[in-house]
Amino acid sequence: MHTAIPALPKGFRFAGVRAGIKHDKTREDVSLIVSDRPATAAGVYTTNLVYAAPVVWDRALTPGSGFRAVAINSGNANACTGQRGLADAEAMAAVTAAEIGAEARSVLVLSTGIIGEFLPMETVTAGLRQAAAALGSDEASVVTAARGMMTTDTRPKLSGSTFTADGTACTLLGLAKGAAMIGPRLATMLGVVLTDAAIDPADAQRLLREAAEETFNCVSVDGHTSTNDTVLLLANGAAGGTTLAGAGLDAFAEALHAACEALACEVADDGEGATHVLRIEVSGCASRDAARQIARAIGDSPLVKTAVHGADPNWGRIVSAAGYSGVAFDPQRLVLHVNGTLLFRDGSPVAFDAEAVSASIKAARETLIEVDIQSGPGRIRFYSSDLTAEYVHLNADYHT
Amino acid sequence: MHTAIPALPKGFRFAGVRAGIKHDKTREDVSLIVSDRPATAAGVYTTNLVYAAPVVWDRALTPGSGFRAVAINSGNANACTGQRGLADAEAMAAVTAAEIGAEARSVLVLSTGIIGEFLPMETVTAGLRQAAAALGSDEASVVTAARGMMTTDTRPKLSGSTFTADGTACTLLGLAKGAAMIGPRLATMLGVVLTDAAIDPADAQRLLREAAEETFNCVSVDGHTSTNDTVLLLANGAAGGTTLAGAGLDAFAEALHAACEALACEVADDGEGATHVLRIEVSGCASRDAARQIARAIGDSPLVKTAVHGADPNWGRIVSAAGYSGVAFDPQRLVLHVNGTLLFRDGSPVAFDAEAVSASIKAARETLIEVDIQSGPGRIRFYSSDLTAEYVHLNADYHT
Repeated sequence: MHTAIPALPKGFRFAGVRAGIKHDKTREDVSLIVSDRPATAAGVYTTNLVYAAPVVWDRALTPGSGFRAVAINSGNANACTGQRGLADAEAMAAVTAAEIGAEARSVLVLSTGIIGEFLPMETVTAGLRQAAAALGSDEASVVTAARGMMTTDTRPKLSGSTFTADGTACTLLGLAKGAAMIGPRLATMLGVVLTDAAIDPADAQRLLREAAEETFNCVSVDGHTSTNDTVLLLANGAAGGTTLAGAGLDAFAEALHAACEALACEVADDGEGATHVLRIEVSGCASRDAARQIARAIGDSPLVKTAVHGADPNWGRIVSAAGYSGVAFDPQRLVLHVNGTLLFRDGSPVAFDAEAVSASIKAARETLIEVDIQSGPGRIRFYSSDLTAEYVHLNADYHT
Repeated sequence: MHTAIPALPKGFRFAGVRAGIKHDKTREDVSLIVSDRPATAAGVYTTNLVYAAPVVWDRALTPGSGFRAVAINSGNANACTGQRGLADAEAMAAVTAAEIGAEARSVLVLSTGIIGEFLPMETVTAGLRQAAAALGSDEASVVTAARGMMTTDTRPKLSGSTFTADGTACTLLGLAKGAAMIGPRLATMLGVVLTDAAIDPADAQRLLREAAEETFNCVSVDGHTSTNDTVLLLANGAAGGTTLAGAGLDAFAEALHAACEALACEVADDGEGATHVLRIEVSGCASRDAARQIARAIGDSPLVKTAVHGADPNWGRIVSAAGYSGVAFDPQRLVLHVNGTLLFRDGSPVAFDAEAVSASIKAARETLIEVDIQSGPGRIRFYSSDLTAEYVHLNADYHT
């Protein structure tokens, strides 16, 4: 099961294979995305001081042009692996480059999985070669490639659209993985967005950063910022037409934002053990950053997350989380709605039908939490997941 | 079961009664602590912008002198209750004052429990009167008073000591409650520390703040900073002697710190659903605050907390939590030990016996996580609890 995609961008090929990195040998763990022509690439990366070897490699190369491929493995993050890890990341690029007849510096690398173990390079190398031989440009290939990025995700995450820019029909496709170690202070998780539009590297970087700021940076599963979080954008111009500018660039930006938003929501929805996704809309703040800080405090609170899991309209947990967010505001002005029902305003409880609100939480996958501070234009939409016993089992009982 | 206390401070009486605020009518929910003579009082309070009515009352009165009692209820936090809540907190003080022949302003108030419901004042008033009639100065009375502060705590939390200050034999006793909504940015939880030493209000305030900074402010169960967190210090001088100064004050400060540390550790140990307490010692930082920020990121990470619960020495979760703490440091200098075993240094994995470390985590209630940044004199000791399915059940399935 995955989000429907209307079409594939031209000039990209995909593969995912079962190389044997993961303990479960029935699952894909190496993926390859190849652009048949040199592509512009931009990237946004984890803000964690402890960042993985593939982040070092990609960050040094982007934004730029002339990129031909993204080599991906799951099951091992190649993080906290020192000089040997850096050599392994470069080797992933070199092996892929040799397979497709390109230079190592034209290949970006993504890894996700356990931190602190060295990559099994024989297995990875064999997997990349196998993937290079299996490249396809049909939807099945895309889905298999997306599966090769997954760790504890229950499903591949895809989002795409078509748009007309400067008179050219273009297509955009995003692939992402999420599940856990999803914190909100960065481009959270692994994501690759592909388009056949022609875009200048500086524009690509600026638009990707803007889109990530309001989408991937507004997702939290457990508040734990990973060492590997990376979102890449590749634009290969295969749709034809000239490099986008003005209104054409605006059309692309809109499609990019929509794809990133859909993927970010999917990441929260598929959070480890999640039974609910929390859509937290904070408005009336002095700034967008202030709104996000309040939303993050609410979305990261284990007490709010368990209350939603239990369909308990325990609004004191929401109001008090806003109160310790670090944003200065007047609690008397705070207005809280849950699933459209007013629960708190003017510093005092409001009479409401708790049974009905509880039933509305139980009835839907998404719980809408709206907080209005009534003090400014700053607003944000933030996604989180509920906290369940299954999250605990997944993270206490398995070495991931 | 509770921590042994060597003696009771002179001139204090205690009671706890079953008033009927809690759903479970077999549990104490109103407590009273009375000082037979006017006492100095100091307080440290929640940093949450959304703070409860009793916090408003106490904060306005402390530090100061002439205090006679602390009136306490559990089962209802009297938070987010507007003007009526403020009137209710004052009424708790007034009812107590009338019972003991004092003024309302000589009575401090503590409440804990559900946020956003008005106090059932008839029940509370009856409970306070019943408590005033039941006051005793034996250990059983103290334990019952400590039980009346509890919410989901599994046991009362007491700590005490005797010390000689300026030639006078003095006694100190602390009572606390914890369990959940325990965040680290404040005097976390409810606590009352009593002593029969004579102390000036300004000294009491300064020493309580210093002690709280390194003890209650270094505890986290779920990172959720409550609306009600309060620690009060009452010093009634009943031990005799003059107001403490110099070496006598130092002796008191030492006893105060030890009691606060013992209570803080108890709060983490009795965290909701906890099977392990995490003792996180961060050293080598530029400052104590930086060390605490790193320790808090580690102690609040659901991934670290579940790893300890699962006895999984998954050190990448610890190192990466330090990396997103917001403190700038060089990951190459980070040295990590868990239960005395070296797991990470020089930016690379270290060969270690994972089975043995896992066994050591399983074997003990406390897991010791030591992080040395090797860049300065700043250090802190921080307590957290593991994250279990039982925490989720407690917070998802009950309206607390």
